[in-house]
Parts: sequence; structure tokens; C-alpha cells
Amino acid sequence: MNVNGQNFQTIWADPNNPARIYVIDQQKLPFAFTIKTLRTFDDARKAIADMLVRGAPLIGITAVYGLYLGMLQEKNRKDLFHFLEERCLEMKATRPTAVNLAHAVDAFFRAIKDEKDPSSRIRKAFETAEKMRRDEVACSRAIGEKGLPLIEEIAARKKGEAVNILTHCNAGWLACIDWGTALAPVYCAQRKGIPVHVWVDETRPRNQGSRLTAFELQQESVPFTVIPDNTGGHLMQHGKVDLVLVGSDRTTCTGDVCNKIGTYLKALAAHDNGIPFYAAMPSSSIDFTLTDGLKEIPIEERSPEEIIFLEGKNGTVQVVPDHCPVANYGFDVTPARLVTGLITERGICKAHPASLSEMFPER
Amino acid sequence: MNVNGQNFQTIWADPNNPARIYVIDQQKLPFAFTIKTLRTFDDARKAIADMLVRGAPLIGITAVYGLYLGMLQEKNRKDLFHFLEERCLEMKATRPTAVNLAHAVDAFFRAIKDEKDPSSRIRKAFETAEKMRRDEVACSRAIGEKGLPLIEEIAARKKGEAVNILTHCNAGWLACIDWGTALAPVYCAQRKGIPVHVWVDETRPRNQGSRLTAFELQQESVPFTVIPDNTGGHLMQHGKVDLVLVGSDRTTCTGDVCNKIGTYLKALAAHDNGIPFYAAMPSSSIDFTLTDGLKEIPIEERSPEEIIFLEGKNGTVQVVPDHCPVANYGFDVTPARLVTGLITERGICKAHPASLSEMFPER
Repeated sequence: MNVNGQNFQTIWADPNNPARIYVIDQQKLPFAFTIKTLRTFDDARKAIADMLVRGAPLIGITAVYGLYLGMLQEKNRKDLFHFLEERCLEMKATRPTAVNLAHAVDAFFRAIKDEKDPSSRIRKAFETAEKMRRDEVACSRAIGEKGLPLIEEIAARKKGEAVNILTHCNAGWLACIDWGTALAPVYCAQRKGIPVHVWVDETRPRNQGSRLTAFELQQESVPFTVIPDNTGGHLMQHGKVDLVLVGSDRTTCTGDVCNKIGTYLKALAAHDNGIPFYAAMPSSSIDFTLTDGLKEIPIEERSPEEIIFLEGKNGTVQVVPDHCPVANYGFDVTPARLVTGLITERGICKAHPASLSEMFPER
Repeated sequence: MNVNGQNFQTIWADPNNPARIYVIDQQKLPFAFTIKTLRTFDDARKAIADMLVRGAPLIGITAVYGLYLGMLQEKNRKDLFHFLEERCLEMKATRPTAVNLAHAVDAFFRAIKDEKDPSSRIRKAFETAEKMRRDEVACSRAIGEKGLPLIEEIAARKKGEAVNILTHCNAGWLACIDWGTALAPVYCAQRKGIPVHVWVDETRPRNQGSRLTAFELQQESVPFTVIPDNTGGHLMQHGKVDLVLVGSDRTTCTGDVCNKIGTYLKALAAHDNGIPFYAAMPSSSIDFTLTDGLKEIPIEERSPEEIIFLEGKNGTVQVVPDHCPVANYGFDVTPARLVTGLITERGICKAHPASLSEMFPER
């Protein structure tokens, strides 16, 4: 997508030197647009853990490029597969909630494990990572196209008035490789000339909404307004929201949606006001082994520092009193009963086991 | 209440010079404890508008001291009452949502309007302000005592385990003169040796939770944890909240509760998880002329700067991109159907017209 008039994806290999992987440093956005180079397994692992890259689809792809870099570092090692297996486990542990991180790592491992020759092994690893990246782009694009009719229907009803969409956190192209999940239908609508306006939840503690979603929408000239996380309910009560679109880090086969902390509160408000609430995700983030999101999905607890300090354009400030206890849960689970539907690359289905297994009969 | 081991109220007159009114500068808390002097009507008006003082009960009392200061400035004026009437309107307009600001101003005007002699008029004005301040303290204290049984009952059930109370914004002594509204029962419980723990919503955009509620609880040695506004729902889903206690800036005779933006989202989550949700308020903030909070209560829209910039211990930072549109609604309305009960200085009643008129038969 667009950054200062130039087209970007969130991660790519240097075409002249495939031992260098580039990522947009999302910690620095929106106040600086910086490209970081990943040269080692550890660079990639740290980029994920420190949220230089974030968003379920993007961390999956970053992880596989990281494994590929790790293989490059150790290419002549005899016990490479044992070594790689350990690295896979290490990579999966960086962010325990997003299931497609694990899926991506496993798929990568499966793709290369039968390559015996060191150089073909490396080639295969690189090709696999590249293909997974391209597939992820196609998947996001498809989510956009499948979700677009939801916006079109509301637009037809509103006869030229902008469709007001509320989103939480960042589930745009910065969370993916391109297009996004929750924002992909918004970009498709914008390209079709449908008037849209996005309410952007600030999304404390890391402010991915006011930092990343605002940045992407601004760069793509999509009209938007940043609001504190507290505001969405009030807007819904007053008819100012037509549709809620969020991403998902893990979805159960029963339709429970695990997403950035605070999503559940917006789902409750949407339900209370009869507003459709959709979660958009690649099917790789649906965990068909789970039936009860609240009981079964591990919720990552992150560093207190993310709450205590806040980075802005002109520095970092401490926003709570000294010696103040804080709790920092990364995600919450929205029960399926509050979810109007799931937007996947195959289409829209109900947040319900029967509807999910009809759309994914092979799982 | 306690600040660095010394007893304070939020506003008081200089005992040696009643032309000086002192307030704690709540804009500077928790990073600096500063006392500001109000010498004129305009000092008081600005202190309210800029939220140097805030909280429904406190702004009411600050307003009447401000009117008294205005009378002192113009004590020999012939048309003092006309002048004062204008000042009353001006004062009421500073914060349109809190109804007890209007009530306090009207009560003050009624109390002094029949004093003809300039010096007795001033004396009466000062005495009225002082009495209203003392009455507000007694009222908060009574709210604490009437609300205490709610905590005691849960404590009895939990057999020594701490009672987990979630609160939004600051409805503690800093919002009042002393004791608080939502936090008054907590302080009463703490003094009785009942183990309590408070989940403190950060309360963006102005962070009254992490700044003011955290400060007061820390100073009073009440155990607490600051959480982002997004977190409460997750905690409730996991049995980590026993009771929600919030304040109210205006309550209708039907039991709709207008409070800091985001309160409605916590009420929805409490309702969804079967957790009691109580709003505590002096009866002066119940507006018996209103029956539909959502339609009738004006919601103050505040400056975008409160969202764009965030002040911390070590300075102020810009937290959204340049040229980023933002919306800043100060309050939302929680419909009575989500409110378990109202804690007033007379006792606890249901958020229901019949229950309210039984408790306040004279209104």
C-alpha cells in the first residue's frame, strides 16, 4: 500500500542479496518511517517479540523469514533439523496468542524438511518464505473482496452518505503484508468510490490504532477520526457507527474471536445497539482444535512498561505515578454469540461450528 | 484524606484571609502536589473549565466559592444581583454535563439574594459556601457508609480474600471535597479492615484513573492495579472483578447514569458477566426533570488537544500523527437497565423511577 506516494509491503527480501530481509519498523511509526534490516534468526525473533513487526499474519511471515535466516547462518551444520526444530519452538513462544505464527512455522518446517542437500535446502527455505508471503497478500486481497459487499449494502441503504466503520487496534496492511484483514474491505470500498469513514480506536496501551491505523488510512486518503477506546459505545448509542470490523489473532472452530484487548467491549456495545460486528481473518488464524476461546486460548501478559511509559512524536513520558502496579493483558476473547460473522479469504460465514465447517470442510 | 501523611480537602478558604481560596491543582497530580490560590471569579471559572478542579461535587463547590470571590471584587456595585445572575449563567456554562454545578450555583444564589446590606451579603455568601462545602463532605461520608454493606457482603462470601472492585475515572475524594463518591465505600471498608483491591481504569483521554485515582489510593495505602480502559471486560470474564463502582455526573429520575466516557462499556461487561454495577452520587446530581438520559443529557465535547497530547511525569508528548482528526466526547450514558443500583447519601435504591421516588419523596 501507499507510503508517501510509494508502494510498500511490510516485509520483503533484498532482490540483490537474499540474506537481507527488510521490514518497516512499526515501533517508530507514525512519527518516523524507517526500514530495518533483519540479518539473523535473532533479529527476526526480536523484531516479533519487541513488536517492531506485529499483527497475526505479519508475525507468521516474519517468523519464517527468520527461520530461513537462521538456516543461512548455520547452513553447514550436521544437525540442522534438530537445530531448526528448537528454533521453531523458540519462534512460536515469542507471541503465544496468535495461532498462525505456529501454523506458519510448522508449514515452513514441513516444506523444507525433506531437502537433504544443504544448498537446495536453503533455496527451498527462501522460496517457501517468498511463496508464503505472496500467498498472504492474495489472502488479504481476497478477504477485502469477500468483505466488500457488507460495506456496499450499507452504502446502498445510506444513499451516498459515508459508511461509518469502527475498528479496534490495527488490522490493516501493516498487520499483514499488504491490504490487511479488517481494513482490506475498507480499502476495496475506497477503490470502488464508496464513501467510507473509519472510527479508529486509539487502542491502549500501545496505541496501534492512533499510531498505525491512523497512519495507514491517512496515507491512503481514507477519511477517519481517532477516538479514545472509551468512546465507541457512545457513538454506537447515537447511530454514528454502521459496522464494526476487527481482526483476530485466533478464532475457535465455534467462532469465539480472540483479538486485541478491548475488542470484547466493542462487541458488547455493537450487540446492545444492533450494529453488525464482523471479525476478518485469514483461515490460518482459525484454530480448529479449540472449542472454547475463553477457557482455551492463552492470553499473553506483556511488560508493565507498555502501560507505564508512552512514546510520542517528541519523546517518551511516564504516565502513571511512581511505584504504581499495572496489569497488561494483550488480548481478550469475544464469545461467538456477539459476533455477527467471520470474513475469511473464502467468504463470510457465521461464527458458528456448522457454518465454519461448511466453509472449511477439509479442517 | 491523606497526602504525604497530612490531611487535606480539595478546596478550602484561608482561615486568616477569606479572600483567598485554595485548591489542589489536579492537572499537576500525581507528578507534583501543588496548591493553587483562587482570588477572583475568573480564577475559579478557569479552574473549572481547564479541569484544575474536576469531579461533579467539587466543581459545584468551586463554583460557589468563585461566585463569592466575584461578589468580593464587586462588593459596592449597585446592580450586584444582576451582575451575579450573569456570573451564575457563565459559571453553569463551563461544564454543561454535571447538573450539580447548576444546582450548587442556584442554591447559593437563593441563599444570598435577600441580603440587602453589602457587608452582610458578603458574609452570608462566604458562610453559604463554607456550609455547602461541609455538607458535601457529610454527604460523601454518608455515601461511603451506605455503600459499605455491598463490600461487606462480598467480603463475607470471599472469606478473607480481597474484594476486587473496578472503577472508572476518578470518583474519589479528589472529585469531591473529601471521601469521594464511588471510592467512599472503599475507604470505609479499608478503615474497617476489610481487604479490598481496586482495578483502576486508566481513563483516556485525561487519565484521571491512572493519575488521580491511583494517586489517592496509593496515598491511602489501598491496594490497586492500573489497567488500560480496554482491560475490564477480560477481567470480568475471568472472575477477577466482584463489583463495579463508578461515580455519576448526572442521573435521571429513571436511573440512567451519565458518567465519564467509557462507563457504558464497563456496565455492559458487568451485565454480561453477572457482576453488580453500582453508581454512587450525591442526590444533588440526580436530575429529577429528566427521564431519558440518552436523549436529554447534553454530552460535552472537549478540546482535541486532550487526545492529541499526553502529559506525563517528564513532559508532554504528541501521541497521534500530525493533522489527525480526533473526537473527544467527555461522557456517555449508561441506561438504567444495566445499573444494579444507585448509592446515595440516603441509602441504596434501584435505578428505577419508583425506587428513586420512594427514596426522594420530596423531589
